[in-house]
Amino acid sequence: MRRQKERRSIKSGMPPGALVHIGEKKSARTRIRLFEYGPEQVREQSAERIGDLPSAPAGAEVAWIDITGLHDTGVIETAGERFRIHPLTLEDILNTGQRPKAEEFDDYLYIVFNEAQFDPETGRIDTEQISLVVGERFLLSFQERPGDAFDPVRERIRRGRGRIRSFGCGYLAYALIDAVVDRYFAVLEQVGDRIERLEEALLGNPTREVSTEIHGLKREMMTLRRQILPMRQLVEDLLKSESKLIRGPADIFIADIRDHTLQVIDTLESYRDLLSGLLEVYLSSLSNRMNQVMRVLTVIATIFIPLTFIAGVYGMNFRYMPELEWRWGYAAVWGLMVTVGLVMLAVFKSKKWL
Amino acid sequence: MRRQKERRSIKSGMPPGALVHIGEKKSARTRIRLFEYGPEQVREQSAERIGDLPSAPAGAEVAWIDITGLHDTGVIETAGERFRIHPLTLEDILNTGQRPKAEEFDDYLYIVFNEAQFDPETGRIDTEQISLVVGERFLLSFQERPGDAFDPVRERIRRGRGRIRSFGCGYLAYALIDAVVDRYFAVLEQVGDRIERLEEALLGNPTREVSTEIHGLKREMMTLRRQILPMRQLVEDLLKSESKLIRGPADIFIADIRDHTLQVIDTLESYRDLLSGLLEVYLSSLSNRMNQVMRVLTVIATIFIPLTFIAGVYGMNFRYMPELEWRWGYAAVWGLMVTVGLVMLAVFKSKKWL
Amino acid sequence: MRRQKERRSIKSGMPPGALVHIGEKKSARTRIRLFEYGPEQVREQSAERIGDLPSAPAGAEVAWIDITGLHDTGVIETAGERFRIHPLTLEDILNTGQRPKAEEFDDYLYIVFNEAQFDPETGRIDTEQISLVVGERFLLSFQERPGDAFDPVRERIRRGRGRIRSFGCGYLAYALIDAVVDRYFAVLEQVGDRIERLEEALLGNPTREVSTEIHGLKREMMTLRRQILPMRQLVEDLLKSESKLIRGPADIFIADIRDHTLQVIDTLESYRDLLSGLLEVYLSSLSNRMNQVMRVLTVIATIFIPLTFIAGVYGMNFRYMPELEWRWGYAAVWGLMVTVGLVMLAVFKSKKWL
Amino acid sequence: MRRQKERRSIKSGMPPGALVHIGEKKSARTRIRLFEYGPEQVREQSAERIGDLPSAPAGAEVAWIDITGLHDTGVIETAGERFRIHPLTLEDILNTGQRPKAEEFDDYLYIVFNEAQFDPETGRIDTEQISLVVGERFLLSFQERPGDAFDPVRERIRRGRGRIRSFGCGYLAYALIDAVVDRYFAVLEQVGDRIERLEEALLGNPTREVSTEIHGLKREMMTLRRQILPMRQLVEDLLKSESKLIRGPADIFIADIRDHTLQVIDTLESYRDLLSGLLEVYLSSLSNRMNQVMRVLTVIATIFIPLTFIAGVYGMNFRYMPELEWRWGYAAVWGLMVTVGLVMLAVFKSKKWL
Amino acid sequence: MRRQKERRSIKSGMPPGALVHIGEKKSARTRIRLFEYGPEQVREQSAERIGDLPSAPAGAEVAWIDITGLHDTGVIETAGERFRIHPLTLEDILNTGQRPKAEEFDDYLYIVFNEAQFDPETGRIDTEQISLVVGERFLLSFQERPGDAFDPVRERIRRGRGRIRSFGCGYLAYALIDAVVDRYFAVLEQVGDRIERLEEALLGNPTREVSTEIHGLKREMMTLRRQILPMRQLVEDLLKSESKLIRGPADIFIADIRDHTLQVIDTLESYRDLLSGLLEVYLSSLSNRMNQVMRVLTVIATIFIPLTFIAGVYGMNFRYMPELEWRWGYAAVWGLMVTVGLVMLAVFKSKKWL
Repeated sequence: MRRQKERRSIKSGMPPGALVHIGEKKSARTRIRLFEYGPEQVREQSAERIGDLPSAPAGAEVAWIDITGLHDTGVIETAGERFRIHPLTLEDILNTGQRPKAEEFDDYLYIVFNEAQFDPETGRIDTEQISLVVGERFLLSFQERPGDAFDPVRERIRRGRGRIRSFGCGYLAYALIDAVVDRYFAVLEQVGDRIERLEEALLGNPTREVSTEIHGLKREMMTLRRQILPMRQLVEDLLKSESKLIRGPADIFIADIRDHTLQVIDTLESYRDLLSGLLEVYLSSLSNRMNQVMRVLTVIATIFIPLTFIAGVYGMNFRYMPELEWRWGYAAVWGLMVTVGLVMLAVFKSKKWL
Repeated sequence: MRRQKERRSIKSGMPPGALVHIGEKKSARTRIRLFEYGPEQVREQSAERIGDLPSAPAGAEVAWIDITGLHDTGVIETAGERFRIHPLTLEDILNTGQRPKAEEFDDYLYIVFNEAQFDPETGRIDTEQISLVVGERFLLSFQERPGDAFDPVRERIRRGRGRIRSFGCGYLAYALIDAVVDRYFAVLEQVGDRIERLEEALLGNPTREVSTEIHGLKREMMTLRRQILPMRQLVEDLLKSESKLIRGPADIFIADIRDHTLQVIDTLESYRDLLSGLLEVYLSSLSNRMNQVMRVLTVIATIFIPLTFIAGVYGMNFRYMPELEWRWGYAAVWGLMVTVGLVMLAVFKSKKWL
Repeated sequence: MRRQKERRSIKSGMPPGALVHIGEKKSARTRIRLFEYGPEQVREQSAERIGDLPSAPAGAEVAWIDITGLHDTGVIETAGERFRIHPLTLEDILNTGQRPKAEEFDDYLYIVFNEAQFDPETGRIDTEQISLVVGERFLLSFQERPGDAFDPVRERIRRGRGRIRSFGCGYLAYALIDAVVDRYFAVLEQVGDRIERLEEALLGNPTREVSTEIHGLKREMMTLRRQILPMRQLVEDLLKSESKLIRGPADIFIADIRDHTLQVIDTLESYRDLLSGLLEVYLSSLSNRMNQVMRVLTVIATIFIPLTFIAGVYGMNFRYMPELEWRWGYAAVWGLMVTVGLVMLAVFKSKKWL
Repeated sequence: MRRQKERRSIKSGMPPGALVHIGEKKSARTRIRLFEYGPEQVREQSAERIGDLPSAPAGAEVAWIDITGLHDTGVIETAGERFRIHPLTLEDILNTGQRPKAEEFDDYLYIVFNEAQFDPETGRIDTEQISLVVGERFLLSFQERPGDAFDPVRERIRRGRGRIRSFGCGYLAYALIDAVVDRYFAVLEQVGDRIERLEEALLGNPTREVSTEIHGLKREMMTLRRQILPMRQLVEDLLKSESKLIRGPADIFIADIRDHTLQVIDTLESYRDLLSGLLEVYLSSLSNRMNQVMRVLTVIATIFIPLTFIAGVYGMNFRYMPELEWRWGYAAVWGLMVTVGLVMLAVFKSKKWL
Repeated sequence: MRRQKERRSIKSGMPPGALVHIGEKKSARTRIRLFEYGPEQVREQSAERIGDLPSAPAGAEVAWIDITGLHDTGVIETAGERFRIHPLTLEDILNTGQRPKAEEFDDYLYIVFNEAQFDPETGRIDTEQISLVVGERFLLSFQERPGDAFDPVRERIRRGRGRIRSFGCGYLAYALIDAVVDRYFAVLEQVGDRIERLEEALLGNPTREVSTEIHGLKREMMTLRRQILPMRQLVEDLLKSESKLIRGPADIFIADIRDHTLQVIDTLESYRDLLSGLLEVYLSSLSNRMNQVMRVLTVIATIFIPLTFIAGVYGMNFRYMPELEWRWGYAAVWGLMVTVGLVMLAVFKSKKWL
């Protein structure tokens, strides 16, 4: 996970609802896109200011206003006024780092959650906060940078594929959440590939880089898990909610998201277990290798120490050392030393110390 | 567990309910088998296409359509249309890797769970997704490859043994789930045998292969546990369900499956504990052995180092070294060295260092 | 725990309710004992077949049929027919390895749980499955081998001590469960004694046998815990049950069993903690001892290595080595070597390395 | 915790309600003290037998009979008959080692819990079982040995301080429980002091005694935690109870006890964490120190081994070794050896190995 | 966390509600500040005694009496009498070290929680107990020392910013709690910075100081977590409460505090995980480094030991050692020794032991 650099503390002391963007400035400029559609027609329009949008969605049944880039608090404020959004909701939209949640207000439903992206270079998982404000006939979506998670949904609206054009805002909200949850599967597949590569690397040569990467991935898994767990709560809240904004024909689809979320959590847990297992294997293979090295070296030293002692004995300068005068003394000592060495080697081999 | 190679991400961006088979192609061709039976009669028929089957189960009370092989999405689609199955259900049938669950729809009950098989060669547990669609007078079962888990049920229908022919679809669903849960016991018995063999191998000689196998089995146990836990939820859901499709005379039998599931979970937990214990024993015996080796070697070195020093002393070339001139100097030094060596040996023995 | 050798898999594929004894044949022959009693009278009778028993308990209020040995499925089947026991209950009675549970049927209450016995020789805990079928005026008890857990209850019935003769079947069931739970206390006391002995052995000399025994006891504790936990659920179920078979005057006594079960679980947990603590102490004392040995040995080697070097220097054969010609050169070198040795000793002592 | 020496198993086989004292005989003789009081008057009286007490509390509103010493089962039995206490309650009073619990009977409320005392010499926590039988106008308290936990309550009754004289038995029960819970705080403060001392000792010199004490305290914390956790349940049960014996004006005070119990549990948990942290610090500082020693010693050996080799080379007896004849050969070798030694030292220093 | 030096035990034996300040005397003198405000006006006044304050808040809607310094129990007692606060509440206000909680009384709501401050010098987190007594038209706040957490709220009241002047006591209570929760974010940001610095330090050079600091921070996180967890309960209790003192327009703001509390807990958990990960990295890098050092040193020793043996052999004094007489014997031995040394080096390199 990218370490959060944003400083929530700058807001400390401000009254609740004060609008300050807390988060990295991820997008150069704020962009607004409007989709107006019904079963029969679809209209698409871009703007830089809320004011540029047509005031009321005329004949269309759903107006989806998709806002990218949060640093321009003016845009958010205008949107808030126009769609009568509570200041606390606006605050949550701007302060990235929210826990995923669904909150019901009188006129709308506020849903906030995270999108995840795996950066294959750093091996880190990048997240971005996405907010949905679901009204009866409008849906506002807020994200920090232009992402492509929503692209398939846009395509489906344009081409009128599936049920999306016939159903209302609730179904659009479902489709957007589903698109984001589907991204988690892609992230997990990339993580799975990386784990497989790490597993093979471990069998070959357990280097320190491998262990660092395992530690890193494990941490990412833990952080991702902490983000996805409240997501489950969010979906359960939607299912228990009595708001007609989200319930209705989209009900069974939300149950589907719940299943997907549980699958993501299951996969996360099993990856975490796999990584813990890999770490254990790494540590034990490391200590195994170390032990082997030390054992071989110690055995070598242990064989030569008595031999050196023997050589030392016959290096002594006593006047009366009969062996020194023997004709075959030198050869005998060599024989002795070779014998001692071989016997020790044999003993060590038989005890499996070598 | 076989690593899932299927790529769920290829579906990312598709509308919900899009039918794509996610999973390995485990069976060469799709095969459809029809069983029509009532208390008095039974009729069996094979086909390659749904269209080849007789349109309506005439006099019979239960029609069991057993479909093997999921890669031919056309078959699934036709079945979906004929039995009015919801697109999300069809999607779940095709996307293997579902969590076990039971979902109630208007006309049918959808139950999905996994069968397990132990591969004694690799020591891995192979799983396969099984889906049941239980209607009032029909039951569709979907599996990836032709398995023999259902064979005993087929036999019982043919021979009219037990209650199976007199009861309806709910009881058939129970019989199929029960047959699969029974397979888990067989898998666990094989795992139990393997654990026993590992235990004996550990007492003999703790090699690295043993530890790798323990790690592997432990991982299998964890993955299996993650698959069987939602199975418990599934059965609880069936018991709490108010659908008349499954409830009724089969009620007490479902309670029986719950007991079996709990027994499987208990056995799994105890195997996991056993394996953790074996790993601890392995590690401690390994470090014990290493310590013993190092201690013996170090003791040997420590005994010879002072002896070598003594030899070194009398190897010095000083002109005035009275000992060198003594008649019994050489013998005395040998005596000294033997004494020092024996004393050290005795001390080390008395301290239990050898 | 004795490893379960029984093969549940031989039943795989049989219809539910098929009667096969799964378990070790623990008793040579099946024995049936009948107790008929009321406040005023008691009658005792033994038989080998159910048919030999008088058909209906005449004036007596409670008929307790106590069956020992399960391998003769015919006996169980006859009893099942006579007392109208559901086939699934008969199956559970025969398939040892059930989780403790209480199940209500129309005419009777089925209770299954385990008795435990500590085998002081192997240090293992032996368990045996006990089944109770509690009807309005009869109680059937099934066990695998003749045990003495029920003896005190039999005595109390014979002597008419306590309330047992005046109360009905519910109280008898309570008395039998209570007698078995009391056995757990005896088992735990024996385990407690063993832990105490292990603790003392650890303080004396931490051998590998001690660690093996600790590991073994810990495993026994975990398995026993897994067996006693569902027992708690069983008692809670009895307390929540609305069946008049067990509720009534025996109510407060069942609450008493619950307290005892909780005490057993508490003791188990604390023993498990104690054993984990002992293992930690064992491991740390082992590594402590190893460290101490290695340190002492290394210090000895480190002291002699520089001395050997000095001796080596004066063993060199250079023509011009002034020290060699000195009158007190040899003595001076000894002085140097002793000084170096003593200084090193002092330094090592002062640093607490020796 | 004092290891429980009492043998519960001697009761195995006895009918429920058999009165046997299970526990150490902690008090020489049984002592009975009677307090009779109302808002206006208070009367105090001691006795050795229940029969010696006046038969009915005349004008007074509350009669508190405080019994110390449980080994004389006759006293307990007489009290049981006089106040119509259920045999199972009497059994629980005598069998020390009960889990804290509150049980409602028709005429009275039975509360059992533990008092704790820290023994500064052994570092162990001593516990004693306290039973309260709370009737409408009487309260019986049972403890194993004369403790001073109840003294402040006695003082308050005598002096008429606080609300105690105006309120009934429920408030007296509250005051007694509160006095005992307050003792836990004192125990925890002493433990806290000891932890602080251990922390300082660890910084100074990590000896094995320190680790033994940490292990011991950790075990005490775990056992105390297991005793205080059911205490929380007890208080919750009192708060949920509908018995008018304890509810009423004392209600808010019981909520106060609950807060205190939660505080005790919190402190216990944090002490346990602290002790675990200390153990980790101890282990890592131990291995750190060991590593340092070994490293220094190995570096010394490594420096001298090449030097000894050089000396060995020039101790060889070859006839043609030109260096030996050189005028400054000896000095040159010294120079070489000093250089090699210094270079190695420098390398080791630069690599931070020394 | 500052170790609590306060001695709760001095209260042991006192009747409940006895007013003694338990805690450090953190403020020189008790200070009382009164804010009276309504939508239109605001009046501010300081005093040293409660009696100095005007008796009844005349036209104003909210009277906020802010009391700093708790050691003067007289002030608290006077306030208690004037606002009819229950003695147990007064006791809780004075006994710092309460668990955060919300308690409803007839006339007021008592809320107690902690403020946290990070001391960058010691790396410890300092906490202070804050009590709020929320009546219908008054709010009393008690803190141990003059802090600045409430300053922004005072500013907002003075300037009439936001909703604060128009809403009642419930909203003021919310604003005060919110201000304190916001401080937790500041504390966590400082901890986050420190963790980042530790992470970099670990990559550079893993010293023992780093590990001590990690251990310390981890402990702080655990203690802080234990303080913030009941805070969540507190907010849930406020949301479930039916008291009109706190519910009403402030409702949605309290839900906001709950979200913030959950975010604080999430961040705490992730910091704890990060620190555990850092500790693991530290330990493994330490043992890695140690292993590397030992391996290099052992390899050096192992290379020289055979060479020294060779030198020893030719240092022997046998009369008949043909090699010694050879013309190129010395050179040949050098060649042999260099070859042996290089071969060993090559072998060790190829095996990656160096």
